[in-house]
Amino acid sequence: MSENDIDLLAINTIRTLSIDAVQQAKSGHPGTPMALAPLVYTLWNRVMRFDPKDPIWPNRDRFVLSNGHASMLLWSVLHLTGTMAVNAEYEILGKPSVTLDDIRHFRQLESKAPGHPEYHLVSGVETTTGPLGQGIATSVGMAIARKWLGSRYNRSGFEVFDYNIYAVCGDGCLMEGVGSEAASLAGHLGLDDLCWIYDNNHISIEGSTRIAFTEDVAARFLGYHWNVLRVGDANDLERIEDALAVFRKTKGRPTLIILDSHIGYGSPNKIDTAAAHGEPLGEDEIRLAKRAYGWPEDAKFLVPDGVREHFDDGIGRRGAEARSRWEQLFETYRSQFADLATEIDQMQRRELPQGWDRNLPSFKADPKGIAGRDASGEVLNQLAQNIPWFLGGSADLAPSNKTRLKFEGAGDFEATTPEGRNLHFGVREHAMAAIVNGLSLSKLRAFGATFFIFSDYARPAIRLSAMMELPTIFVFTHDAMGNGEDGPTHQPVEQLVSMRAIPGLVVLRPGDANEVTEAYRYILQLRHQPAVLALTRQALPTFDRSKYASAAGLARGAYVMADSPGGPPQVILIGSGSEVPLVVDAYETLTKEGIRARVVSMPSWDIFEHQPQAYRDSVFPPDIKARVAVEQGSVLGWDRYVGATGQIIGMKTFGGSAPLKELQRKFGFEPERIVAAAKEVLAQK
Amino acid sequence: MSENDIDLLAINTIRTLSIDAVQQAKSGHPGTPMALAPLVYTLWNRVMRFDPKDPIWPNRDRFVLSNGHASMLLWSVLHLTGTMAVNAEYEILGKPSVTLDDIRHFRQLESKAPGHPEYHLVSGVETTTGPLGQGIATSVGMAIARKWLGSRYNRSGFEVFDYNIYAVCGDGCLMEGVGSEAASLAGHLGLDDLCWIYDNNHISIEGSTRIAFTEDVAARFLGYHWNVLRVGDANDLERIEDALAVFRKTKGRPTLIILDSHIGYGSPNKIDTAAAHGEPLGEDEIRLAKRAYGWPEDAKFLVPDGVREHFDDGIGRRGAEARSRWEQLFETYRSQFADLATEIDQMQRRELPQGWDRNLPSFKADPKGIAGRDASGEVLNQLAQNIPWFLGGSADLAPSNKTRLKFEGAGDFEATTPEGRNLHFGVREHAMAAIVNGLSLSKLRAFGATFFIFSDYARPAIRLSAMMELPTIFVFTHDAMGNGEDGPTHQPVEQLVSMRAIPGLVVLRPGDANEVTEAYRYILQLRHQPAVLALTRQALPTFDRSKYASAAGLARGAYVMADSPGGPPQVILIGSGSEVPLVVDAYETLTKEGIRARVVSMPSWDIFEHQPQAYRDSVFPPDIKARVAVEQGSVLGWDRYVGATGQIIGMKTFGGSAPLKELQRKFGFEPERIVAAAKEVLAQK
Repeated sequence: MSENDIDLLAINTIRTLSIDAVQQAKSGHPGTPMALAPLVYTLWNRVMRFDPKDPIWPNRDRFVLSNGHASMLLWSVLHLTGTMAVNAEYEILGKPSVTLDDIRHFRQLESKAPGHPEYHLVSGVETTTGPLGQGIATSVGMAIARKWLGSRYNRSGFEVFDYNIYAVCGDGCLMEGVGSEAASLAGHLGLDDLCWIYDNNHISIEGSTRIAFTEDVAARFLGYHWNVLRVGDANDLERIEDALAVFRKTKGRPTLIILDSHIGYGSPNKIDTAAAHGEPLGEDEIRLAKRAYGWPEDAKFLVPDGVREHFDDGIGRRGAEARSRWEQLFETYRSQFADLATEIDQMQRRELPQGWDRNLPSFKADPKGIAGRDASGEVLNQLAQNIPWFLGGSADLAPSNKTRLKFEGAGDFEATTPEGRNLHFGVREHAMAAIVNGLSLSKLRAFGATFFIFSDYARPAIRLSAMMELPTIFVFTHDAMGNGEDGPTHQPVEQLVSMRAIPGLVVLRPGDANEVTEAYRYILQLRHQPAVLALTRQALPTFDRSKYASAAGLARGAYVMADSPGGPPQVILIGSGSEVPLVVDAYETLTKEGIRARVVSMPSWDIFEHQPQAYRDSVFPPDIKARVAVEQGSVLGWDRYVGATGQIIGMKTFGGSAPLKELQRKFGFEPERIVAAAKEVLAQK
Repeated sequence: MSENDIDLLAINTIRTLSIDAVQQAKSGHPGTPMALAPLVYTLWNRVMRFDPKDPIWPNRDRFVLSNGHASMLLWSVLHLTGTMAVNAEYEILGKPSVTLDDIRHFRQLESKAPGHPEYHLVSGVETTTGPLGQGIATSVGMAIARKWLGSRYNRSGFEVFDYNIYAVCGDGCLMEGVGSEAASLAGHLGLDDLCWIYDNNHISIEGSTRIAFTEDVAARFLGYHWNVLRVGDANDLERIEDALAVFRKTKGRPTLIILDSHIGYGSPNKIDTAAAHGEPLGEDEIRLAKRAYGWPEDAKFLVPDGVREHFDDGIGRRGAEARSRWEQLFETYRSQFADLATEIDQMQRRELPQGWDRNLPSFKADPKGIAGRDASGEVLNQLAQNIPWFLGGSADLAPSNKTRLKFEGAGDFEATTPEGRNLHFGVREHAMAAIVNGLSLSKLRAFGATFFIFSDYARPAIRLSAMMELPTIFVFTHDAMGNGEDGPTHQPVEQLVSMRAIPGLVVLRPGDANEVTEAYRYILQLRHQPAVLALTRQALPTFDRSKYASAAGLARGAYVMADSPGGPPQVILIGSGSEVPLVVDAYETLTKEGIRARVVSMPSWDIFEHQPQAYRDSVFPPDIKARVAVEQGSVLGWDRYVGATGQIIGMKTFGGSAPLKELQRKFGFEPERIVAAAKEVLAQK
């Protein structure tokens, strides 16, 4: 078989596997795999440095399918290349990631070929994609990580990190704001290891892109300072290869390749139509398409002889050689730079270095206290000194979030200083969160910061963080009404419960500076969960922990901070964050008046819910039904802890523009109000 | 006083009012008002057609301060122009919107000069701004409305709508993705009544824009097909006026004016620094700045003689004349086009036309039934025929959302067909929601649609809709796990509770086709609240309402759909949306087994919470504690209705990629599971 013939055979295998899988599933997206099979084939079999035998080799090229609905492209190549499965502990298993049987069960329960690429589920998937724009934005995080890793770990003669990042996207990704944010930042940072390939097929779900998307994409990306190339025929492997070669030679700019393609290529009746996008072709059209490909019309899920071997001989051989060379290099590197090699090893396994928590600040009792954001800043600075691969930044609010890493050598991450630990995301919260995901997928320990209210801008990426089970960190300051005078547009109300509702996301709202330290201690030890920290702008008293229980109780989500002496409590007062001091005040008053109250500091619902029933009952004894919860956020959800007879002092409206003290008075966040509520629930009993 | 002198006096009045107000409040943003006072002065006093005596005159020019932190610009001009207050019923009151006393109490409780522009609070504010990017994106909605209104209502010789929309923004708005989405669409639609003025001051909160924002903005906007102009000196009134004149002459493209400015202009030590952005200048620096302006150094909140008169003589006189001419024109128009004039009147008062709900579909009992989205499509098409100014569209999912208006003449809204009722937003959910806000602020009745999962992309704009108390409509289909095979990236879990937590937002999840009709009937009558409809992709049975209670019960949020005969219920089964049929199935089984169950259909928590206690107790009698709630969404919040002894069949994890039936089985959404839960809660009692 000639070189051309086997190329086409491999490409048409991807196409027909995709067509057959969608038809079998009775749902899915055949058109884009039919169009982009030549691109994906060229990238994988001719260009990418990826060893299917070790899909987590640190210096592999990354492939991101941002138009995740075309997942059959990925399942096809993962299957045909024989990419191996890896478990959650980063061990390579003796079985393939995606079997032909998985593909036959595309989009079915338990199949390793789900509807969209899912990182935590299928080995070889570099990031979960599907919500448009997320993949390309995440790829910018991967490209930042690549620069940072190269800068920190490469040594003369030892380019241990020199991989490239490829992301494929459609018009949807380029229309989504998160994609624009990420593209602007990537251009600013000159991320020349990053290549996006835009599937320019002129078709969106509602029809031609002429109805809503007529911008000059090339002009826009030139404005972002990208290198822009165009390939006029998605079936021309040589021109695709040329463009990818130009990308690899281009320094100082990321590359966008605009690839003119035909959705549903090969289908005589559906090519270039929206009908090819999101539904099976139908048996008749499948026959016609297969005929057009010169394929046996009745064959289903056919992988012709020679195709797997051709991938073995292409990406397989090339990848194995590259990894082998790299491993030899790394052994010498290890002998010369033992500490750096150890760092790389630990990082890859998501382990923390020895002494990661040394010198974490412990705060002395102080009635005046310190703001959550300030305490956080101190902890962050210590953590970043203890953990070399800990880095992050803010969406243009670092001076307000107090997230700047200030120690010597921390520096700014910029095109000319890729060793910097402070990222400047600009006013781009959504891209920031996706980039933090990309950094984390690259095994860095990364945080992003903004005002809590603007977490709304970043939600889709935070959700993916939780779904991918990534240990990302989101530092959200100015929580509750801390943004006083800025008014309701800047004051979170529903954000806390909205974050708590994201499955797997750890949400923490510490009540004083020592709870902030404990919160970070807890978060840093997470390996498979993202965390959100909601922190105050204003100073909170630092509690005397010889009088009140240790802040280490935070690790259980909620803990008894204080109990009146002389018998079991009559009433339980629950608070989180900035309301804990108010609750403690109320407790002191009640105690003086002879009412036995308990204070529960409850920084995290989700951690608490994962404690054994016995512990939960010890904090909230079921027979003590007089309860008051106090939180400057939506009341929604607190019923679970106060029951039908309790009271919730929370928010049911938006806030207001005034100094915080006045807002607290207006909305009832005062000790007197809590005391009154406690008496009311007691009287009711 | 020469023309130049009085201009400068007026400009420096805006500057010093801003400086003094921020200093007095001890918080705020003085730098941008100091820089942009000449622009705002020129726009208002020389260019804009706006009558301070009637700030809701339909044909006024619109001014949007997208960089809302510079709110003192707006409070200054609203005060100096003597703009009148208007109430929620659109009546002009005999008092000014913003008094000098309000400005003295800038950012204080009850002041009409809050931290950021708030639409529902201060007359003369066209839209609430502050979260960056929202203002400019909303302005695109206003510009779409302008085209649509002109197209429908203008007649030869009767240009009743020919206003312009001006939006001022900073680098933050241009970095935010929502701004990019909106700009791309505005260029596509050729919205030539829209002018954005970009305050190019090179400063962001973290320092120079060089650290994160170096894109070529002009190139980007040329790529979007905008007209791009540059004014090199923000103090040059003539060049500003020239640029605005070029805008007004430019056809077929929106205009971006890049205005080079100096943040903190006049402050010798803070000009061009991030320090001028977000904090008071300080008394010493204020003196120096006032000296630079030739201002009395000790004067506070000074409005020199002649300044108010100068505004009266400028915008006041021009605006009054324009409005008077328009009113004369409109009287003649009314005599010739009575029906159209009536429409305009009704629309402006947010009234519905006679017969707005005629022929709304009523669905016959049908066990096979119809999907929520399909029922919605039928209702939408009828409503749009009944209400001429009802329009909307989808973020590239109209065929899936079933939101297309198909009746004759509905058409597409495009540059060449501005009369169209179907908007194509492209894959731009966030801009869509902001644009829907802009349409609603322009008094159109507008809806936006996408999959429920992608509501996450649009949250910040939906939040503003609620805060502005706008009667917008968001149609979110494929709720719960309806997106079956697409998998967890496409399946909402936490979205329902997250929406319910937004204050003032009406969230409805109808349980069959007739509840869909009732939901729209309820929503359409809202005048001050936005609504979210969560609809199924899959068919739901249409209930026999002679057997079960009428779907009109939806208007109370939750209602008893069925009760077993023979005594009060032993157990209450609660469901919403696609789970109502499962609950009804379970009820029938329990009834057969002699267990007295009640079915509560609960399409809306928030509507229910606003019912009198007696009604709520009649639906959920406090003494009936055996309760089961069933909803394919986060369990969070349901404790309120099932209590400590109830059960919640809901989601605690993300979904999966499989056919819906299999997912329902896997996650326990089956009648058998509900029956078992009912028996468990009963046994527990």
